[in-house]
Amino acid sequence: MSLITVGTMAFDAIETPFGKVDKIVGGSATYVAYAASNFLQPVQQISIIGYDFPKEEIEGLKKRGVVLDGVEVVPDKKSFFWSGRYHVDMNSRDTLITDLNVLEDFNPIVPDSYQGSEFLMLGNLMPKLQLSVINQLKVRPKLIVMDTMNFWMDIALDDLKAVLKKVDVLLVNDGEARQLSGEVSLVKAARKIMEMGPAFLIIKKGEHGALLFHKNHVFFAPALPLEEVFDPTGAGDTFAGGFIGHLAKTKDISFENMKTAIIVGSALASFCVEKFGPERMREITKQDIDERIAEFVQLVNFDIDLV
Amino acid sequence: MSLITVGTMAFDAIETPFGKVDKIVGGSATYVAYAASNFLQPVQQISIIGYDFPKEEIEGLKKRGVVLDGVEVVPDKKSFFWSGRYHVDMNSRDTLITDLNVLEDFNPIVPDSYQGSEFLMLGNLMPKLQLSVINQLKVRPKLIVMDTMNFWMDIALDDLKAVLKKVDVLLVNDGEARQLSGEVSLVKAARKIMEMGPAFLIIKKGEHGALLFHKNHVFFAPALPLEEVFDPTGAGDTFAGGFIGHLAKTKDISFENMKTAIIVGSALASFCVEKFGPERMREITKQDIDERIAEFVQLVNFDIDLV
Repeated sequence: MSLITVGTMAFDAIETPFGKVDKIVGGSATYVAYAASNFLQPVQQISIIGYDFPKEEIEGLKKRGVVLDGVEVVPDKKSFFWSGRYHVDMNSRDTLITDLNVLEDFNPIVPDSYQGSEFLMLGNLMPKLQLSVINQLKVRPKLIVMDTMNFWMDIALDDLKAVLKKVDVLLVNDGEARQLSGEVSLVKAARKIMEMGPAFLIIKKGEHGALLFHKNHVFFAPALPLEEVFDPTGAGDTFAGGFIGHLAKTKDISFENMKTAIIVGSALASFCVEKFGPERMREITKQDIDERIAEFVQLVNFDIDLV
Repeated sequence: MSLITVGTMAFDAIETPFGKVDKIVGGSATYVAYAASNFLQPVQQISIIGYDFPKEEIEGLKKRGVVLDGVEVVPDKKSFFWSGRYHVDMNSRDTLITDLNVLEDFNPIVPDSYQGSEFLMLGNLMPKLQLSVINQLKVRPKLIVMDTMNFWMDIALDDLKAVLKKVDVLLVNDGEARQLSGEVSLVKAARKIMEMGPAFLIIKKGEHGALLFHKNHVFFAPALPLEEVFDPTGAGDTFAGGFIGHLAKTKDISFENMKTAIIVGSALASFCVEKFGPERMREITKQDIDERIAEFVQLVNFDIDLV
């Protein structure tokens, strides 16, 4: 049982209706690692950071069983920096600043010690780099999950389509599914996207939950109705980390187990949004997670003895 | 087991991205009757129509067990007419024409033969008229369900609040829940609205499903992901009719049974949108409904043996 995650490790500046932070640790691989390490260790990270990435963060991740042999440290450059402001409804945001910094030179190298991993999580990143990681693996993982975003559909669609042919599960939001497929109906969009490569498609709808498609099957997982969404940053990556973490722990990649994995991912994401950045992810225990999953059962459980 | 439904019976002109109809039967009470009559008969209708309402429609409803003793026929006026155009995403629409016609004089009278009914469905209508119906009932029904809309919040909020104090279940959409409560968070909105009277609150989110609140409990029912939503007109009323139809049939108004009733309502609504107006509602059989409900079970069913 082993998992490689690829993505960014970064600093974020975030402004929401509830407050703002000027500099907090973020990045897709960071959130995936925080979530997945609740379920299995080691989590084998591939990323790139600058001289300014906090030592305590590195130590904290290591203590959670995150292996950082694949994380390149650039001594004379700053870490990737992203700044964004959320709108009042929290469903949309404006990107204010994107300082690539170390990310400009990122050329991910899979350490020998990572070879043979059974699960691969490709966090949101340039498609070419995602493909490079796949191509470096001597044995094809049992399951490859890919996250991406509209930005890559705009500027690197061909590269993205090349990666799509090599992955098992694609994670996108509803707007991205529509953009990628050219279809308004998510059912039609799903069919077209699965024809592009992935046998499984997860469409994330934020506060409206997530859909899992596979062949002619569809499964719906709600998001937990929350009193307050404090900061949505990283919720999608946390969802991905919980999803693949559960699959890697159970070593079961059936559609049935993916349903459970989506509930696990949704539960993890529901914690992530409760505080700024990954703060809440550092606090939660196995018991917290189990209780939250039980809330999801309550949320959707109904008596079918009616017909 | 008996059900009174109050609301409009009308003509609609509808334009969607898939086509248009110039004149089709509609109205909240019509859709409620079509849906509820799948589960119990008689459905005791209270409404008002003009000279132009089709005889075949009247006969069709009667054959389904809909009693029309409480439907006033105005010989020298036209039926209520509504015309609307849906946007491409089908989640929003513009009202083009509202000709009140007979609705201007509507003063609903509960026939003696309806007295003693255990279930009352107040379809979307002027709050004063909803209240008038409640006040005419000699025995308070076991369950009163109320539908309403933002329009009445804008122009008749005090009346609406007076009705709220007398009903058990309120049905609104997410925007209306936010408007009525002044809260962005639906969890907070639900708490405030339940303090206004109804012990149960259903928040409809269209293609994103529906939430049922009661005390500190919450239940989520998804909408079925559909290839095509042809015409959303009447989907909310159909949902309401399926919901109260199931409750009236089973005579069980527990939170647990309301969960099932919401799934039933969602299943009915998923048929309604497949064709223009109530066309599809005339075709479906008990077997169609049972099969659709089974699809909902598949959609949300997951294995919880994970913690």
